Amino acid sequence: MEKPSIPKGTRDFGPATMGKRQFIFNTIRTVYQKYGFQPLETPSMENLSVLTGKYGDEGDQLLFKVLDSGDYFEKVKSNPFKQKQIQKYADQFVYAFNLSLVGVSVIESDYLRIERILEKYKTILENIVQSYDDENDQLIFKLIINEKSLDILHKLLFSKDFDISKPLSAINDTTSNGALVLKMLNEWFIHRTTSKQLTKDIAEKGLRYDLTVPFARYVVMNRHEIAFPFKRYQMQPVWRADRPQKGRYREFYQCDADVVGTTSLLCEAEIVMMIREVMQGLGIADFTIKINHRGVLKGIADSIKAEGKETALYVAIDKLDKIGQEGVSKELTEAGFTSDNIDLLFKLLSTSGSNEEKRLALAALFNSDSGQKGLNDLKEVFNLLEEADSNQNNLEFDIALARGLSYYTGCIFEVKINNVAIGSVSGGGRYDNLTQSFGDKENLSGVGISFGVDRIYDVMEELQLFPKETQRSSTVLICHFDKESMRYSLKLLTQLRAKGIAAELYPDEAKIKKQLDYANKKMIPYVMVIGEEERNSGLLAFKNMEAGTQEKLAIEQIIGLLSK
Amino acid sequence: MEKPSIPKGTRDFGPATMGKRQFIFNTIRTVYQKYGFQPLETPSMENLSVLTGKYGDEGDQLLFKVLDSGDYFEKVKSNPFKQKQIQKYADQFVYAFNLSLVGVSVIESDYLRIERILEKYKTILENIVQSYDDENDQLIFKLIINEKSLDILHKLLFSKDFDISKPLSAINDTTSNGALVLKMLNEWFIHRTTSKQLTKDIAEKGLRYDLTVPFARYVVMNRHEIAFPFKRYQMQPVWRADRPQKGRYREFYQCDADVVGTTSLLCEAEIVMMIREVMQGLGIADFTIKINHRGVLKGIADSIKAEGKETALYVAIDKLDKIGQEGVSKELTEAGFTSDNIDLLFKLLSTSGSNEEKRLALAALFNSDSGQKGLNDLKEVFNLLEEADSNQNNLEFDIALARGLSYYTGCIFEVKINNVAIGSVSGGGRYDNLTQSFGDKENLSGVGISFGVDRIYDVMEELQLFPKETQRSSTVLICHFDKESMRYSLKLLTQLRAKGIAAELYPDEAKIKKQLDYANKKMIPYVMVIGEEERNSGLLAFKNMEAGTQEKLAIEQIIGLLSK
Repeated sequence: MEKPSIPKGTRDFGPATMGKRQFIFNTIRTVYQKYGFQPLETPSMENLSVLTGKYGDEGDQLLFKVLDSGDYFEKVKSNPFKQKQIQKYADQFVYAFNLSLVGVSVIESDYLRIERILEKYKTILENIVQSYDDENDQLIFKLIINEKSLDILHKLLFSKDFDISKPLSAINDTTSNGALVLKMLNEWFIHRTTSKQLTKDIAEKGLRYDLTVPFARYVVMNRHEIAFPFKRYQMQPVWRADRPQKGRYREFYQCDADVVGTTSLLCEAEIVMMIREVMQGLGIADFTIKINHRGVLKGIADSIKAEGKETALYVAIDKLDKIGQEGVSKELTEAGFTSDNIDLLFKLLSTSGSNEEKRLALAALFNSDSGQKGLNDLKEVFNLLEEADSNQNNLEFDIALARGLSYYTGCIFEVKINNVAIGSVSGGGRYDNLTQSFGDKENLSGVGISFGVDRIYDVMEELQLFPKETQRSSTVLICHFDKESMRYSLKLLTQLRAKGIAAELYPDEAKIKKQLDYANKKMIPYVMVIGEEERNSGLLAFKNMEAGTQEKLAIEQIIGLLSK
Repeated sequence: MEKPSIPKGTRDFGPATMGKRQFIFNTIRTVYQKYGFQPLETPSMENLSVLTGKYGDEGDQLLFKVLDSGDYFEKVKSNPFKQKQIQKYADQFVYAFNLSLVGVSVIESDYLRIERILEKYKTILENIVQSYDDENDQLIFKLIINEKSLDILHKLLFSKDFDISKPLSAINDTTSNGALVLKMLNEWFIHRTTSKQLTKDIAEKGLRYDLTVPFARYVVMNRHEIAFPFKRYQMQPVWRADRPQKGRYREFYQCDADVVGTTSLLCEAEIVMMIREVMQGLGIADFTIKINHRGVLKGIADSIKAEGKETALYVAIDKLDKIGQEGVSKELTEAGFTSDNIDLLFKLLSTSGSNEEKRLALAALFNSDSGQKGLNDLKEVFNLLEEADSNQNNLEFDIALARGLSYYTGCIFEVKINNVAIGSVSGGGRYDNLTQSFGDKENLSGVGISFGVDRIYDVMEELQLFPKETQRSSTVLICHFDKESMRYSLKLLTQLRAKGIAAELYPDEAKIKKQLDYANKKMIPYVMVIGEEERNSGLLAFKNMEAGTQEKLAIEQIIGLLSK
C-alpha cells in the first residue's frame, strides 16, 4: 500500500507548532476584541459567482474549485447547447442540411447521392458565411459548421439509421435523424470543450480566496441587521492554487479586522494602536509600521505629470525596495516619463526627517488637491495618536509605500520586522467601495488590517520569541511505581484538576524512566512520582523537570505551588 | 446583478452566533487541555487516495472533490487510454483493421471498397469475440470495438486524409491514420466517460470528511516523532455533500479527542469525566452518558445464537429507540432469528437496576468469553471512576447502545440531553486498529470522543443556557456630544484599554441617541457620555445600560468597577 501523504502546499500542525500558532492567534484575537471588533465566520466554500472576477484573471485561475456533487458530467453531456451561440449555429446546420437534401433523388446510388448532397451543402454554407457581418461570427461558423458538420453529414448519410426522406425540424427534434445529429455534435462539442468552459458547467463552488470578498458578501446579505459602523474580525484559512514554494502555502490563515460604515480617521489611528499592541503581545520589539496615503501617491503623480500613467508609476514605486532607484528609473523611462519628471520623483521620494517634517516638505511641493487631502488625513491620524496619549513610535510615513494595485483609496499600512529578512507581516488600508462589486449602490467606506500568521510564526521562530509555555501541554504528570500507586494517584489527579491544573496520570504500568521520558517529550514541567512510601506518608515526590530538583510535599502544597 | 448567496447547507456565523459558538469551543478546549490532550490541525484538503474507501460507498459519494488546477481536461483528452483494458481493446482494433485491409484493391470504386472492408472487419471481430473466454471481456469488446469501431472505420475510410496503403502500427502511432483513429476513439471515449470515472482523472484532492482519518494519516506519517500514548484533540470543520436539511449541514465542526497507543481503561474513565466537565462548563445539568461495550453486544449475540448474523442483530438493536420492540422483533424474524432467541434477547435487554446490578445479571446469563470480557472492562471503568473520587452520576450502562456499524471494538459512549428532542450530542469509543487502513502493521489501540457543536448549540438555545456575556462585544462605549468631547475621550479610551477593558469610542460625530443605539445593538453593557460638563469636572456620566441607571464617576472609579 502506498504511503499516505498530504497535498502539495498544505501542512499538518502538530502539538508543538499548534501551541505556538495558538499563541499568535490568541494575541491577535485579544487585541481585536479589546478594540470592539466582533467575530465573523463565513463558509469555506463560496459560490463561484461570488468569487469570480474579484481577484483579476490570475486570481480566478488560483481559485480552488469544488466539483459539483452527483452525476455532473451526465448533465454536461445531456445539454451541450447551454450556450445560446451554439444553438444559433446548430439551427443553421439544420437549415443548410435540409436545403441540401431538396431535389436529391432517393434512388441514386448511395455514393453518388452522398457526394451530391455534400456538394450542395458546402455551397449553402458558403452563402451563410457571407451573410454574417461579424468577423468573429464568420470564424466560429466556419469552425463549427463548415468543418465539423461536413464530418457529421458524412457519417449521417452513411448511417443505417438515417432516413433521407425526413428532414430535421431542429437539431434536437425527436426523429431518429435529429437524435443522431445531436449525439454526433454532442460528442464533438464535449471533446472540444476547454477546461475553463467545462469548469463553469461542473463546478458551482470554490474555496475562499481571501476574507475580504466573503466579508463584503456578508455585509450585502445582512445589511439590515448589521449595526454600523460594523467592526468585524475574522480568522480563518484561505486557499490559493499557487505554485507552492518556501513560505508560500496553498492553505493559510488570514486574520483580518475591518470597520465599515464610517470615514472617521479614528479607525486608522486605532489600527496603528492595534498593530502596536499585537506586536507587544507577541514580544516583537523592533518593528516599523509604514503608513502612506493613496492621495499622497496621487499628489506625486500629479507633480510629475503622470496623468494616465499612474498605475505604471505606482507599480514602479512599489518595487523601489527590490530593484532600487536605477531599476525604477529604467521602468519609468520605458513607460514614457521624462528624465526631468523622474528626477522630481526621486526628489519627492527622498524627502526625509520626522513624519511631520516629511509631511510639511511634501505639502510645500504638492500642487494638487488629492495630494493635500492625503497629507491632511495623515496629519489627523498623527494628531489622534498623540491625543490618545499614544505616540508615533514605530510609525514611519513612507512615501514610497504603494501596496500594489489594490483597491485602497485612503491610508495604507504595512508592517515590517526590522533586521529580519522577511516581507511584511501585516498590511491594510482604507477602501471606499467594499460592496460595489456586488452591485451595491451605497458607498460603504471601510478600513482594515490583516496579519499574516505564517510570516509572524517564522519571525518569532527566528528571533526565538515564543514563550516556553506555548510548548507545554499538561502542567504535571503523575508517575507511579505499581498498580496500587496508580490507583492511589487517581484521587490526586481529581484534586489537581478540580483546581483547574492541567494534569495527567500515566495510563499504563511502566518503568519510571519511560514515564519520565513521556513527560520530557511533552514538555511537562512538573512530575509527581508515587510509590509505597508516598502512599504511606502522604508526602509526595515532586520534581521540577527543568531545574532538576525534587522535594517531598503534601498534595495541598503542590496545588498551592501550581495554582500560582 | 444577481444578489449574492451562499452555497446550500453552509452558514455564515455573525457576531451573535459566534459569541455563543466560541463559548462552546472554549469550554470543550479547556477541558481537553486540562486532561493533557494536545492540539492538532490537519489540512482541509486531503489526497483522495487517503479519503476514498474509508467511509464506505455512500461516504465516497459524499466527499467534496476539488478540481485539479490548470488545464485538467486537456490532460484527460490527450490521454484517454489510461486504463489498461481500453489499451487492450484498442490493440485489437488495430489488428482487425489492418487485417481487413489486406487484399482490398485500391482501384475499386470508393463505395464498394468500403463495403468490402467493413464486411471483412466484421467477420474478424466476430472471431475475436469468440476467442475471449471471459463473458465480461466479450461484452466490453462488443461494446467498444464491435459497435464503435465500425462507426470509426466508416468515417476513417471516407476521410480525405486516410491513406489505405498504410496500415496502423498501433492505435496511437504517428502516421496520419493513427492520429485520425486516436482522435475519433478519443472523442467517443470522453463522451462515454461517467462522472465517476472522470472524477478520478480530474480531482486528486477532497475536503476532509471527518477528523479520524486525517488523524490516523498523521499518526502513520509521524509515528517516529510522536510520544505515545498520544493524546490529541482536534477542532476543525468537516465537509459532507449530504442533502441539506434541518440540523444537517454540508460544513460543520467536529471536536474530537483521542488517546492512541494504550489499552488502559483509565482513558475510558477519563472520557466519562471529561464529558461531565464539558457539560458542567456548558451549564447542561440534565444529561445521560450512555456506556456499553462491544464485548457485551457480542455476548448477547453469542447467547442468542446469532453467529454470522451479528451485524443484522446490532443494526436492529441500535434502532430499538426508534422502532420499538415490535419493530426490532420483526426485523430479526426476517433476518432468520427464532422467536425463542428473540425472546431471550429482549429478556437480556430488559435487565434493569443500577449499572452494577445490570452487570451482575448479565454476567450470570452470558456464556461466552467476549461477553465476560466486556463486562469486566465496564467494571474496571466504574471502579476507576469511584477511586478517582468521581462517581457514576449521569452514567448509564445501556445494553442496547450499539453505535451503528462503526469500527469500535471496546467501550462505546453516547451522550443524550434529557427532555430535549435531539439526537446524541457526543459519541465515541475504543477502536483497535486506527492506522490499519493505511497498511500499518502495528495495532494501535485508541479511544476517542467527539462533540457535535451544532447540536450542543441547538440544545443550549432551547434551554436558554448561553451566559449573557457570550452576547457582549465591548464592555464600554464612550459617547460624545461634540468634536471637543470626542478628542477628550481619546485619553479615557487609552486608559480603559491599558487595563485590558474592551472599550470603544464612537468614531463619528452623531446624535447621542444614535450612539446609544449602537451600544444597544452591540449589547455593550456600559456607556460613558462625555460633554462639556464632564470635560470640566472630570466626573463622567456612566450608564449601566441593562439596569438603566446612571452615575457620575471619575475614570479611575470606572476602571475599578469594570476591572472586577
